[in-house]
Amino acid sequence: MSYSVMSVNVKKVRALEVTSKPDLLAVEEPLEIRIGFGEEHQRQEKSISVTMRTPGHDLELAQGFLFTEGIIRSADDILSIKHCRQVKKEEEIGNVVRVELSYELPIDIQKLQRHFYTTSSCGVCGKSSIEAVEVNACESLPTGKPVLDRQLIHELPIKLREAQAVFEYTGGLHAAGLFDHKGKLLLMREDVGRHNALDKLVGAAADQGLLPLHPYLVQVSGRASFELVQKALVAGAPMLSAVGAPSSLAVQLAQSSGMTLIGFARNNRYNIYTQPDRIIVKKSLKVS
Amino acid sequence: MSYSVMSVNVKKVRALEVTSKPDLLAVEEPLEIRIGFGEEHQRQEKSISVTMRTPGHDLELAQGFLFTEGIIRSADDILSIKHCRQVKKEEEIGNVVRVELSYELPIDIQKLQRHFYTTSSCGVCGKSSIEAVEVNACESLPTGKPVLDRQLIHELPIKLREAQAVFEYTGGLHAAGLFDHKGKLLLMREDVGRHNALDKLVGAAADQGLLPLHPYLVQVSGRASFELVQKALVAGAPMLSAVGAPSSLAVQLAQSSGMTLIGFARNNRYNIYTQPDRIIVKKSLKVS
Repeated sequence: MSYSVMSVNVKKVRALEVTSKPDLLAVEEPLEIRIGFGEEHQRQEKSISVTMRTPGHDLELAQGFLFTEGIIRSADDILSIKHCRQVKKEEEIGNVVRVELSYELPIDIQKLQRHFYTTSSCGVCGKSSIEAVEVNACESLPTGKPVLDRQLIHELPIKLREAQAVFEYTGGLHAAGLFDHKGKLLLMREDVGRHNALDKLVGAAADQGLLPLHPYLVQVSGRASFELVQKALVAGAPMLSAVGAPSSLAVQLAQSSGMTLIGFARNNRYNIYTQPDRIIVKKSLKVS
Repeated sequence: MSYSVMSVNVKKVRALEVTSKPDLLAVEEPLEIRIGFGEEHQRQEKSISVTMRTPGHDLELAQGFLFTEGIIRSADDILSIKHCRQVKKEEEIGNVVRVELSYELPIDIQKLQRHFYTTSSCGVCGKSSIEAVEVNACESLPTGKPVLDRQLIHELPIKLREAQAVFEYTGGLHAAGLFDHKGKLLLMREDVGRHNALDKLVGAAADQGLLPLHPYLVQVSGRASFELVQKALVAGAPMLSAVGAPSSLAVQLAQSSGMTLIGFARNNRYNIYTQPDRIIVKKSLKVS
C-alpha cells in the first residue's frame, strides 16, 4: 500500500533558532505503465513508461498518460486497467499498472518509442535504483565534510538568485550553483529544467577539474526530487540545498548515502533533513 | 543559433488594469544527445536522450548528463564533444550534440535503456513535435469558446490551492484543476510531477465522460512547459492557466493551436500570452 505523504524528523532552522520536529513529505515513487495490445490471440506486452509520481489515482494517471500521449483516443480503447499483482520484487507492489488495450487499437511500437523522450536515470523501483546509483557513484561521500556555518546557509539561495542573469527577466529558469565551505559561489548554470541546470553545472565542474564535488555544496532553486539527489550524489556532492521541498525518495536516498539534504531554504529559514553534522555554529564567524 | 530568452507581446492584467507589453520568455528547445562508442574500427552511434532544455552551455549539459547518469566516470572518457552539423532538418541545427566516447569505455546499451526512464512525448525538434501533436490532438479547439470573465481568472489559483489537501502539509506537490466557465472547480489532482498531476486530471475527466475538455479551463500550480500545453491540447482544453512562467515553446504551441495561455496567475495579476479573446469583461457579473 502506498501513501501520498510520509513523516520524517527534521531540524528546523529559523535565523538562530534550531528545533527538531516531525515534518510531512510528499511521497515520490516510480510508477511503471505496461500495455497489453494486439489481436485477441496474439497479445503482446510492453512497458512504455516509468515516471516518478506521488502514489494515488494511479489508474487515472495511466489512463490520462495514454490519452495525452495519443496512444488511446477515448476511454473505450481500454479493456481493463489495474495494478499488477504478479511482480518480481516487493518494491514493485502497487507501483506497476497494466492496461489492456482494445484488440482493434493500432499500436505502432516504433513510433511510440520515438515519441517518448528520455530524461534522467532511475530503475523501475526506488529501491533498485538507489542500489544502482550507489554502484554508479564515483566514490563514497566524505564523512563529516565539508563543514559549513549554520548562518552561511541562509545566504546561498540569495547569492544564487543574484547570480541568475536571465531569471530576473523571465522568471522561468531554474538554477544550480556550486558553493565552497565559505559560501562563495564558484559556478552557476540555468535551465528551464532543473535536472538540466544541475547537469550543466556538473559538466562545467568537470571542465574545471572540480569533480568529484567533495569539498562543495550544491544549491538548487526549486524542489529537491530524487533525480536531483541522485545526480548530485554521482557527482560526489556531500551537501544539497533546495529552495523548495524535498520528496520522500530524495530524503531516503540522501539518508542512505550520507548526504546532507536541506530544503525550504528561503526567508531566513531552512530544514535539515539528513546528516546535520556538516552544519555547525561558528561563534567567532564574521560574515563579510 | 539559439538564444536563452525571447521576446513576445503579452497582455498584462493587474486587478482591473490591462496593458499590452513586450515580455521576455525563457527559451525551451529540445536537445538530442548522441554518443559514438565502441572500438576504433567498429564505431556505433546511439541517440540516448532528448531533453527539453534552455539553449546555452549545451556541451556542458551533454557532458554533465553522461557523468551524472554514470555513463562516463571522468572527462577523460570523452574524445570529443560538439554540435552536429549534419542534421536532417533545419530545426535540429544547434539542437543535436554528439559525444565521441573513448574506444575502451564499456557501454552496455541494454542497461542504458533500462536506466533512462521515459516521460511524456515530443520529437527531437520543437517543430516536428508540434506537427506530431496536431495529428494526435483529438480535434481542433473550439474558436472563441469558452468565455471567462477577466476577474474570474484571479480566483482560480486560489481555489486550486484551497482544494489541495496535501500541499498544505508538505509544500511539495503540484496540482492541476479543471474549471468551468463560471470558475467552478470540477476536478483536482496532485502529484510531485506536474505532468503527472495533469495526466491524473485527464484520466479522471475521461472516467467522468468530460473529454474532450472543450468547455473548460485547466489551471496548474507551477510553470507552463511545452509538455503541459501539449497534454492539455491533446485533451482538448482551450484554456490553460499557470501560476508560474511559460516557456517559449509552450507559447509557440499555444499560439499555433489556438489555445489561450495564461501565466504568472497569482497575487491578483496574470499575463495573457495567446488568444485573449476568450477572456472578457462582464460588467454585470456578480461572483456568488
